Amino acid sequence: MTSLKDDYTLLAPGPVNLHPEVRKALALPMIHHRTPEFDKIFKSTLNDLKKIFQTEQDVYMLSCSGSGGMECLLINLLRPQDKVLCIINGKFGERWAQMAETYGAQVFTITTAWGEACTVEQISEHFSQHPDTQLVLCQACETSTAVANPLQEIGAFVKNTQALFLVDGITAVGAYDIPMDAWFIDGLVAGSQKAFMLPTGMAFVSFSQKAWERVENNRNPRFYFDIRKEKEANQKGESFFSANVSIIRALQVVLNLILQKGLQNHFAEIHRRAEFTRTFIQRLGLKLYAQSPSDSVTALTLPPQVDGQKLRQHLEDTYRVTVMGGQDQARGKIIRVGHMGYIEDRDLKRFILCLLEGIRSFDSAFLKGLTLESLDQEMEKWLKEHP
Amino acid sequence: MTSLKDDYTLLAPGPVNLHPEVRKALALPMIHHRTPEFDKIFKSTLNDLKKIFQTEQDVYMLSCSGSGGMECLLINLLRPQDKVLCIINGKFGERWAQMAETYGAQVFTITTAWGEACTVEQISEHFSQHPDTQLVLCQACETSTAVANPLQEIGAFVKNTQALFLVDGITAVGAYDIPMDAWFIDGLVAGSQKAFMLPTGMAFVSFSQKAWERVENNRNPRFYFDIRKEKEANQKGESFFSANVSIIRALQVVLNLILQKGLQNHFAEIHRRAEFTRTFIQRLGLKLYAQSPSDSVTALTLPPQVDGQKLRQHLEDTYRVTVMGGQDQARGKIIRVGHMGYIEDRDLKRFILCLLEGIRSFDSAFLKGLTLESLDQEMEKWLKEHP
Repeated sequence: MTSLKDDYTLLAPGPVNLHPEVRKALALPMIHHRTPEFDKIFKSTLNDLKKIFQTEQDVYMLSCSGSGGMECLLINLLRPQDKVLCIINGKFGERWAQMAETYGAQVFTITTAWGEACTVEQISEHFSQHPDTQLVLCQACETSTAVANPLQEIGAFVKNTQALFLVDGITAVGAYDIPMDAWFIDGLVAGSQKAFMLPTGMAFVSFSQKAWERVENNRNPRFYFDIRKEKEANQKGESFFSANVSIIRALQVVLNLILQKGLQNHFAEIHRRAEFTRTFIQRLGLKLYAQSPSDSVTALTLPPQVDGQKLRQHLEDTYRVTVMGGQDQARGKIIRVGHMGYIEDRDLKRFILCLLEGIRSFDSAFLKGLTLESLDQEMEKWLKEHP
Repeated sequence: MTSLKDDYTLLAPGPVNLHPEVRKALALPMIHHRTPEFDKIFKSTLNDLKKIFQTEQDVYMLSCSGSGGMECLLINLLRPQDKVLCIINGKFGERWAQMAETYGAQVFTITTAWGEACTVEQISEHFSQHPDTQLVLCQACETSTAVANPLQEIGAFVKNTQALFLVDGITAVGAYDIPMDAWFIDGLVAGSQKAFMLPTGMAFVSFSQKAWERVENNRNPRFYFDIRKEKEANQKGESFFSANVSIIRALQVVLNLILQKGLQNHFAEIHRRAEFTRTFIQRLGLKLYAQSPSDSVTALTLPPQVDGQKLRQHLEDTYRVTVMGGQDQARGKIIRVGHMGYIEDRDLKRFILCLLEGIRSFDSAFLKGLTLESLDQEMEKWLKEHP
């Protein structure tokens, strides 16, 4: 029988549980970023990041949170007064739209109901009215709703316009297949504390060739996030600003782990965790919140009699299981559980058992016939059948 | 006799050698930034940072390198077309001036010779011609030359003008006494990888009340570095963007170490390292590059027959001692050695011995009569007399 209690189980959609080898790398003595030892690490991580982004373009490393990476894509490409189409499926879509507005864009939005993805038809309709739109901003996975947008279809549409397709892949890149070049993504951002299994503090960005022309000609003022500076420094094997030695050294560990395993095998592992979670959430009679669920994070809708904020707190206090509740309009209604990071099968099972027990602490009649033991056996069986 | 060889000795002016307790903290399992456990750490570090900044104002934590912190001070306070006076003593002064120019300032400069500090008379003269200057930008310590500027005098002057006095304290705050409030500093930035003995990746900033009025009324577009967002979130006990859990948790360790020891005692330890280094550099007949040397970093001028770039490389390759060479116009002429971070007496001695041996590998006749053993004894004596 899986133990309900453990030291600590972090199943948030970022930051995620760290791999033991990453923790070791973080504890290494500091080295300087202008040393031959670090030069090698810097070069190899920049090169391997391209494999995760699935791009021929260069990938750049920035010291900032994911939102800083979103700002980097935006301010290198946005010219004031540009028409910008923002897909909004939740909190982070809203954030990117606010950012574009702050920097002087003429913002148009496609706002879906929370839990729903956008469609390429909506985007096509916008372009029929505004063919001079310059940027399309979209979340790969909207972290606040666990919705995955149809990037491939959107990319195929936008490539035939003059617009650039910018994707916030923070809760997606490295967790599932987002081939930047093949899907005609013009700007892609990833975050260290998500599928890269590192502490928060770095964002990774890449620009298509179509985007680079805009970068070079864009006179929008920028300094810290001016990607031209970083490009020039990287060509000399250096970072423009002081490099984040600790995280980059740990990134090398992660990239080696992923690439040795094979990128598609790595995605398959995360997909299995997502499938397991979706299966047993529904086994508990609960619904998935997202209509097109992402493999990186699952959101489940709670029964109306259960307050999600209280349940989340209960899981934290009673079982030391950290998952996230809902934000803004989903507050109290959903629980979000992440599938990225160092997660073992026992963590997957423990979450489902704790979820059941947690709901029962608010509604003692919930699924009365189901014992923890039999549920544990069902889960064990599923895991064996899906190795 | 002090061993010339060791695992690795990092004596750069940042990043610096990590305290063993910091390394342990960095290796801890990840926790989420929205948990009661992290809430406590966040609150206590924000509070303790005020003691290091010596201010009644709030201090804010940003995920970025030091330059990001410089940008944060600037863009929250600068209005396009503002007259900005930039003190330039070296590379980082040049960077801040470029940043101000990028964001539309009307930039005026006081450029000293490298190795020299500015004087308050120079600033006063500027204001007599441009009393409508809005910002004065100055490095506390210019890392590229190891020069310390007379902050107290400048602050006393600027407070009687309408201008704001912004100080880049990246290679200074936490290393020596810079009481923000007492010296009328309106904006101060510090960096994690310097006197805070942490990995690169965070900057800490604070604004005076005089500065806050400007922040609130400033319509300059900004998002990632918009300090109003962070202020509002901090008042709710949160960070606006995902918090850098690893570094903040390690910051708590460092702040506890420093504050338990006492801030002035901590400064005295760093001062002792600087004094030791200055004493024995001169004992080797070498000159200090900076006319008003900082306690955080020492720059020494090499004899003309020794190429600083080659010597720096030699120290790295032969002794695994990392120090920095000169940048730009000081390239090849100087060596810069840092005094911040986890440094033991044996590291101080090892650097001087390796420096002597290193110079001799380029000039075998250098200080021929001096043996390593006698120099080691002299240093031992000095250290005992200066406990």
